[in-house]
Amino acid sequence: MPAGRRKGNSDTRQEVLDAARDCFAASGYDGATIRAVAAKAGVDPALVHHFFGSKADLFAAAMELPVNPSELIPSIVSGDVDELGQRIVRAFLSLWEEPKTRRRMLAVLKSAVRHEAAATMLRMFLTRELFGAVAKTLDAPDAGLRANLVGSQLVGLAMARYVIKVQPLAGASPEALVAAYAPAVQRYLTGKIA
Amino acid sequence: MPAGRRKGNSDTRQEVLDAARDCFAASGYDGATIRAVAAKAGVDPALVHHFFGSKADLFAAAMELPVNPSELIPSIVSGDVDELGQRIVRAFLSLWEEPKTRRRMLAVLKSAVRHEAAATMLRMFLTRELFGAVAKTLDAPDAGLRANLVGSQLVGLAMARYVIKVQPLAGASPEALVAAYAPAVQRYLTGKIA
Repeated sequence: MPAGRRKGNSDTRQEVLDAARDCFAASGYDGATIRAVAAKAGVDPALVHHFFGSKADLFAAAMELPVNPSELIPSIVSGDVDELGQRIVRAFLSLWEEPKTRRRMLAVLKSAVRHEAAATMLRMFLTRELFGAVAKTLDAPDAGLRANLVGSQLVGLAMARYVIKVQPLAGASPEALVAAYAPAVQRYLTGKIA
Repeated sequence: MPAGRRKGNSDTRQEVLDAARDCFAASGYDGATIRAVAAKAGVDPALVHHFFGSKADLFAAAMELPVNPSELIPSIVSGDVDELGQRIVRAFLSLWEEPKTRRRMLAVLKSAVRHEAAATMLRMFLTRELFGAVAKTLDAPDAGLRANLVGSQLVGLAMARYVIKVQPLAGASPEALVAAYAPAVQRYLTGKIA
């Protein structure tokens, strides 16, 4: 089923996205399935896969997250585990430093603070996809907590720099922030935390 | 001027708080003065001092922050600087672990995310009072950035544990969190960050 230019494709795509938003809202990230989204949109599940890839990618598209998890996550977790902290901080900052993606990241963050349901969906997605991938890379019994600790520093960095805009942090260069944060993130990943 | 029980004291107190909220909203934390608040409430500045203490304390009362900065901050910054990280994490967690104070902290955090003006006021207050006190204790040229780094980890901890409620972080014991976070906070305060 090629992604042709024929009329109707973009309508169908939009219908799938609408169905996905409904399903994620009704069933949560874990409960929603590609099959249920397809049924709701009146299309074949293969078409949903074709348009959006994995459930994680469909979620990202439905939430208008400015990332494609299937591409981003492997590029972060692959490579030397001793530099995982640095790769994570760099990737996170690059999402926030670009004005266009920053707007979407801000919207997602604000939505999670305002709406319990949005917080729940974001939590499930992060737990299943992002923290899960990091935890798998670490292969340690406390990997789940370690991934959470990293997440807590990243969301705090976003809050301080892009929402509360406290100085001098808000005006610091991305490279200065990598130097300041990467060792802390690396310790959360592979250091002594108990 | 003793804090008597006579009729009218609580009305006056409320009028001062209302005037303070107006002044902080209009002039920001730095621009607002005890004198201006007193003039707006139609009372003597000495009465404002008498009821609320310092400008920081008046701000905390007006924002319904569940802390008294004049008491809390000295208790954190005094003592061995090598254990400052641990004292900060413990004090922050104790504010959030108590259901009543947690509700107020959550309200302040949500307000800062929703309203630019609230974020600005909170930023000025934190910069002037809390980060300022920590920076003074550190007495280092990059103390401002160090205090910001600490703040970013604390707000991220609050977001992850109490707003997004990601597991296992949300269910971890306060002591486990002190063990996990205090060394990171201590490094931000006194370690190599550049």
